[in-house]
Amino acid sequence: MEKWRSSQRILRNYTKTLISHRFNTNHNNSPNISSSGKQGFYTNSYDLRDYRGRSSTTVNQNCRNLQYRLFGSTTFEVQRNPSFATLNSEDVNRFKEMLGEKNVIEDEDRLATANIDWMRKYKGFSKLLLQPKSTQEVSEILKYCNSRCLAVVPQGGNTGLVGGSVPVFDEVIINIGSMNNIISLDKVSGILVCEAGCILENLDSFLLNEGFIMPLDLGAKGSCQIGGNVSTNAGGLRYVRYGSLHGSILGLEVVQANGTVLDMLGTIRKDSTGYDLKQLFIGSEGSLGIITKVSILTPPRLSSTNLAFLACKDFFSCQKLLSESKRKLGEVLSAFEFLDNQSMDMVLTYLDGVRNPLPPSVHNFYVLIETTGSNETHDKEKLEAFLLHSMESGLISDGVVAQDINQASSFWRIREGITEALMKAGAVYKYDLSLPVEKMYNLVEKMRIRLGQRAKVLGYGHLGDANLHLNISTPEF
Amino acid sequence: MEKWRSSQRILRNYTKTLISHRFNTNHNNSPNISSSGKQGFYTNSYDLRDYRGRSSTTVNQNCRNLQYRLFGSTTFEVQRNPSFATLNSEDVNRFKEMLGEKNVIEDEDRLATANIDWMRKYKGFSKLLLQPKSTQEVSEILKYCNSRCLAVVPQGGNTGLVGGSVPVFDEVIINIGSMNNIISLDKVSGILVCEAGCILENLDSFLLNEGFIMPLDLGAKGSCQIGGNVSTNAGGLRYVRYGSLHGSILGLEVVQANGTVLDMLGTIRKDSTGYDLKQLFIGSEGSLGIITKVSILTPPRLSSTNLAFLACKDFFSCQKLLSESKRKLGEVLSAFEFLDNQSMDMVLTYLDGVRNPLPPSVHNFYVLIETTGSNETHDKEKLEAFLLHSMESGLISDGVVAQDINQASSFWRIREGITEALMKAGAVYKYDLSLPVEKMYNLVEKMRIRLGQRAKVLGYGHLGDANLHLNISTPEF
Repeated sequence: MEKWRSSQRILRNYTKTLISHRFNTNHNNSPNISSSGKQGFYTNSYDLRDYRGRSSTTVNQNCRNLQYRLFGSTTFEVQRNPSFATLNSEDVNRFKEMLGEKNVIEDEDRLATANIDWMRKYKGFSKLLLQPKSTQEVSEILKYCNSRCLAVVPQGGNTGLVGGSVPVFDEVIINIGSMNNIISLDKVSGILVCEAGCILENLDSFLLNEGFIMPLDLGAKGSCQIGGNVSTNAGGLRYVRYGSLHGSILGLEVVQANGTVLDMLGTIRKDSTGYDLKQLFIGSEGSLGIITKVSILTPPRLSSTNLAFLACKDFFSCQKLLSESKRKLGEVLSAFEFLDNQSMDMVLTYLDGVRNPLPPSVHNFYVLIETTGSNETHDKEKLEAFLLHSMESGLISDGVVAQDINQASSFWRIREGITEALMKAGAVYKYDLSLPVEKMYNLVEKMRIRLGQRAKVLGYGHLGDANLHLNISTPEF
Repeated sequence: MEKWRSSQRILRNYTKTLISHRFNTNHNNSPNISSSGKQGFYTNSYDLRDYRGRSSTTVNQNCRNLQYRLFGSTTFEVQRNPSFATLNSEDVNRFKEMLGEKNVIEDEDRLATANIDWMRKYKGFSKLLLQPKSTQEVSEILKYCNSRCLAVVPQGGNTGLVGGSVPVFDEVIINIGSMNNIISLDKVSGILVCEAGCILENLDSFLLNEGFIMPLDLGAKGSCQIGGNVSTNAGGLRYVRYGSLHGSILGLEVVQANGTVLDMLGTIRKDSTGYDLKQLFIGSEGSLGIITKVSILTPPRLSSTNLAFLACKDFFSCQKLLSESKRKLGEVLSAFEFLDNQSMDMVLTYLDGVRNPLPPSVHNFYVLIETTGSNETHDKEKLEAFLLHSMESGLISDGVVAQDINQASSFWRIREGITEALMKAGAVYKYDLSLPVEKMYNLVEKMRIRLGQRAKVLGYGHLGDANLHLNISTPEF
């Protein structure tokens, strides 16, 4: 315990009293740190849902009424706002009339899954999960909840890492997963219209046959839903090539908290009529309404993909390699990811069957460069010439190009497996930061000096988009 | 006149009493059509500036107080809102104290230029043009105008074709052209920060030396300003490659009508913190505030550019060629523009020194395909293989690839010269439409049948973005 408390002291400027009481099985209203290693943590992001009032309230036996969270250097008690109603059997019956019995979930096992996030760090106490099948049903649910003052939390694939998709107290969970129909695809322009509950990977598979791809790709693609991707303004691996969802989303259908349906489901490439209100819903995490349909521009699927796994001696070389690749690989560059050797060690230690494709040596950084283009020969030539030049100029100390799809998958497994490895290693403090590339890694180094032997500090992420994942791993919180 | 009136009758569903009285030198309050061929026209777009009230007012000797404009099929009188104040000498003195004498323009010749648009279709009656040099000055101007209830119109390069940048009545013109400093360029990420009055072409020239390009390009690049581009959500020739400004604009500084400065000038590639309010200012045409600074992601400048000028027998072939080029040219495609033979005739008739690069023949459509990539040999190979295949499959009936920059410029001159040729040909009714590609040209054909010999109907535009310019040319309005 001493070690843990020491690290807590060192970390206090960053995580002071971030500990929530949600995982503590004994009721305890004091803000003291519990001895359990399984507590939930809040990130210091600002939560937009207004459910968390600050007026005092009593502890409820059915759900926690009190949480602690940090804004800047100040700790707030976050209490269940007593002006919100508590679910009763009449409410449940009304929902059953609206949605049919089987779409109103009270089963404890199924609720347990929906009440907890993928990382098992955040846990809510919802007693009800609703599965609407149409925009109309979402509208009816919200209208009713609004009239009854019942709090809700929208949930997509529940793959987020910051607790945004699980309840805090006893909110009704509205899961959009049953709304998973593809509505249309314009095969000339690549404009796809679908319901918000479509799983990202399913959309990509559908598009594969039609000659298009989704403009975004992320590790959680097998479970995450497009509505959640849009609500959280998800970035991911293709961002460097296809850019932000603010550019690719052409239209949205959204249901506001009072049940009003906003039809902003444009399906044209350019629309400069009036204010572009749909933009406000991209990244607003459900706080302005629940996204029910999405219209998105999908780029054509190109025939040739190549992947190189490279080693660099320092972060400056990674930066320089990025600048050079943007110029020399230019139009074919489709991903530029990096990880430090601490991230590599983590993956090699905790994931079965993963190996470093480069011979054992002291490499400080690893870079994945993916190219996607329309001509295999051209793309290979470009990549090989670029790698040769980078090797000669000393930017790369070692490297290997995937010879087939299996090898490419094994390279991606290293980068995409870091989160899973971190989970297996114990407790993890996750930070997702946008910074100027040249200053990005300073933060990791400073944190490493601060923490010394007490924790492992990992830096990896989307270097091509100046997006760092700073992760701090300790045996327990 | 008979011909003109006939065409007016046929057109009335679209342009009924669109005629404004602004160009008529005699005061005339009746909504009758004037005999002058130099009248101004309103497009049937909705103007967001609230200056045009609908309460009755008297005719003012200094400015027109009454206009007519069409919303849907209903004509409204648009009157100067009498609650707005009229400029007096004390106001002018206050502006001189704020900005210095030379930035407060009352000179009639200079005002005449600022009161009329590039097409000479819209004319205002402003008595004052202000040239602020800083955000602070813009803020002071707006704060003062707000307190005095003086109407204002923001003006950038005044290159718009729909009258958005000229006054309607006697608004004070705020021209941002003196705010033309480049603030910073991040050479790793290509993020440019500059003042809103920077001319697009100047930014592109600055970036040329640094190895980047602006993500947008348009015919008016030599005069239009980046603030105006953002305010109007300008598209242009590079849209098919680099997408919408909603994706490339990373931050804005904006001054609201009451003088409040909103600092949303983010300079990071990804920002998912809070609501993305800057998005509302992209395309809101100054109605929410005046943009004073812009942060924009600029792509790397690639070394190889190729341009093909092609002929297609019908619009279906153009469409098919677009789909194929997106797939086969994929990553190097940087522009896909089209014009019909009526547009070609217009350019050949009215512009000196322009010739059709293809041998005389009856071609119905022309397409310009531009590629931009990092490898000259690869790009040429891709383009040539694509053209050969398209020729063999009958999608292209003839074509030529530019051999040098002069030839490329002469091809672009045809496409970019259409607006100028139309101006020389007489009166022009301009429509800028986003439509599904497959239905796009039906509108041109239907309009041509409706108008018969009375007018020339031209269709051209950004086929790659499903954006049609429908233009109707008559000797006079």
